[in-house]
Amino acid sequence: MTATVIDGKAFAAKVRGQVAEHVAKLKEEHGITPGLAVVLVGEDPASEVYVAAKHRQTVEVGMASFEHKLPADVSEDALFEVIDKLNADPKVHGILCQFPVPDHLSERRVVARIDPNKDVDGLSVANAGLLASGETGLVSCTPLGCLMLLRDQLGNMSGMNAVVVGRSNLFGKPMAQLLLQENCTVTIAHSRTKDLAEVCGRADILVAAVGRAEMVQGDWVKPGATVIDVGITRIPHPEKPGKSKLLGDVEFGSASNVAAAITPVPGGVGPMTIACLLANTLTACCRSNGLPEPEGLTA
Amino acid sequence: MTATVIDGKAFAAKVRGQVAEHVAKLKEEHGITPGLAVVLVGEDPASEVYVAAKHRQTVEVGMASFEHKLPADVSEDALFEVIDKLNADPKVHGILCQFPVPDHLSERRVVARIDPNKDVDGLSVANAGLLASGETGLVSCTPLGCLMLLRDQLGNMSGMNAVVVGRSNLFGKPMAQLLLQENCTVTIAHSRTKDLAEVCGRADILVAAVGRAEMVQGDWVKPGATVIDVGITRIPHPEKPGKSKLLGDVEFGSASNVAAAITPVPGGVGPMTIACLLANTLTACCRSNGLPEPEGLTA
Repeated sequence: MTATVIDGKAFAAKVRGQVAEHVAKLKEEHGITPGLAVVLVGEDPASEVYVAAKHRQTVEVGMASFEHKLPADVSEDALFEVIDKLNADPKVHGILCQFPVPDHLSERRVVARIDPNKDVDGLSVANAGLLASGETGLVSCTPLGCLMLLRDQLGNMSGMNAVVVGRSNLFGKPMAQLLLQENCTVTIAHSRTKDLAEVCGRADILVAAVGRAEMVQGDWVKPGATVIDVGITRIPHPEKPGKSKLLGDVEFGSASNVAAAITPVPGGVGPMTIACLLANTLTACCRSNGLPEPEGLTA
Repeated sequence: MTATVIDGKAFAAKVRGQVAEHVAKLKEEHGITPGLAVVLVGEDPASEVYVAAKHRQTVEVGMASFEHKLPADVSEDALFEVIDKLNADPKVHGILCQFPVPDHLSERRVVARIDPNKDVDGLSVANAGLLASGETGLVSCTPLGCLMLLRDQLGNMSGMNAVVVGRSNLFGKPMAQLLLQENCTVTIAHSRTKDLAEVCGRADILVAAVGRAEMVQGDWVKPGATVIDVGITRIPHPEKPGKSKLLGDVEFGSASNVAAAITPVPGGVGPMTIACLLANTLTACCRSNGLPEPEGLTA
C-alpha cells in the first residue's frame, strides 16, 4: 500500500473541536447557545442508535440538544405541528427529522416543512436551489464532509478532474456542485454510464457513492488520485460468524496501491456526517444572529 | 461539410405551432387564455427589440401579452408593486423582467420577487432547486430549447457522454442537470478546465456556452458528435463595412466536417429561446388551472 489513508475519524474530531471552540465563544461573548432539534418518528433501532450519537456529540460540543420522539403512527398534521413549533423557536437553530419515516409520511413534504434557514441536513429544495445558484445556503452534511476532507488533503483543487459516481439528490448532485465551486472539471457518472472504469480512470478526484460494495476496482483508479469512498454496505463477516463487516464502494486493497490518498470504510467519510451537522447548526445559529460565520466549516 | 445543420428557426416555428394548437384548445375547451407579462425597465434599444419580438410571438400563438414599461429610475418598491400585482393577477400565467435592469436594481432580488409558478424564465433559486432535485418546476428557456433540439435529433440519449462548456446559472448548470435527467454521463467544463480540447473530444453531445467566438475548433470535436452552439458574439462584418456578423462559440466550418449534426449561429439555438418562453407560459397556465401539461414542451 502506498496511499495515505485519510483518517476521517480524527478529522471529524478536529472539526467538532473547532465547533466546540466557536460555541464556547458564542456563549461567552454573546450569551447564545446554538441548539439542534432532532425529530424521530417510530422506533427503528438503527435510527435510534444514530439519533443517540447525534445527541451525544451535540452536547459534547456545548450545544443544546432537543429530542422529539413521536409514535410511528403520528399524523402528518401532528408532525408538522412539532416542526412548526421548532421553526418558530429562537432557541432552535437546526432541525432535522431522522429518515426513514414510516410509509404514510412523505420525506419530501417533511423536509419542505422545515424552515430552510434551519434545514441543517441541507436536504430541502430551497437549499438545493441556493447551492445550484452559487448562493449561501445550508449544504447537505455528507458532501460537505467530503469537501472538507478534500480541501484538507489537496488545498487548491482548481482545474482538477473530479468524477462523482452516483447522482442522488442527497449526495451525488450536491457533491458535484461543490466540486464545481472549487473549479474542478466535474463529471457525474451513474448506472447508465458506459466504460465507467475509463471514466473513473481520468479522475484526479474520485468520489464513489453508489452503494455497491467494492464496485470500483484498483485498476479503475488513476495513479496518484485522491479517492473518497462514500459507500457503506454491511455484509456478514467472512471470518467471524454472527458478526458483520462494512464495505465501501471501492476495493480498498487494490485502490490503495494506486491512489495517493484514500478514505477507508469505516473511519473515512462516515464520521464527518455528524461533525458537519454540528458545523451546519453553528453556521445557522451565527447567520440567524447576524454574526460572522465560522471559517472553514462551510462550503 | 458532412454534418446535418440543425435548423433551429424551423424547429422553433414548429414548437410555436404546437403551443398555438394547445392555446386554441385551452380557449375552446376551458375558456382559458394563457397570458405572458413582460416588464421592461428603461429604454435599452436591444431590450426593446427583444421585448417587441416576444410580444409579437406571444400574440401570434394566441396568448395574451401584457407589457409594463417602467422608467429607468423606477424604485425597487415601485417595480415590486408591479410584480406583486402580476403575481396576483389570474390572467397572467408567466412573468418575466427583461434583463439587464439599471444598476440600482438587483436582478437577483427581482427574480426572487416573481412567483416561482410564474417564473417562465426559470431563473429563480426556487426553480433551480426544483430542477436540481429532479422535481417539477419551470426550466430556463435556452437550456430547455437545447434539450428539445437534442431530443429531436438523437431521441434516447442514455449513456451518451455529454460535455457542457460553461457553468453559468443561466445556462450551463441547468443544461447539465437536464442532460443528467436524460441519463447522459455529464461533464461540466469551464475556463479553469485543463486540456479542454481533449475533454470536448470525448463528447457525443457537445454544448458550448462560453461566449468566446469560435473557441471550439473542428479538431476538438469527436467524429459523429452532435454539437450545440449557444454562443453569440457580434463582430464587424469582414466584407461588408458598417455591417456586423454573428459568430458562435464553435468554428462552424471545421466542426461541420467532423460532427454528425450541428447548430448554426445564427439560426440554431437562438430562435428556440422565445419559443420555449411561450411553451413555459403554456405549461404554467395548464398547471395553475390543474390541467394536463402539453407533451413534448417541458423538460
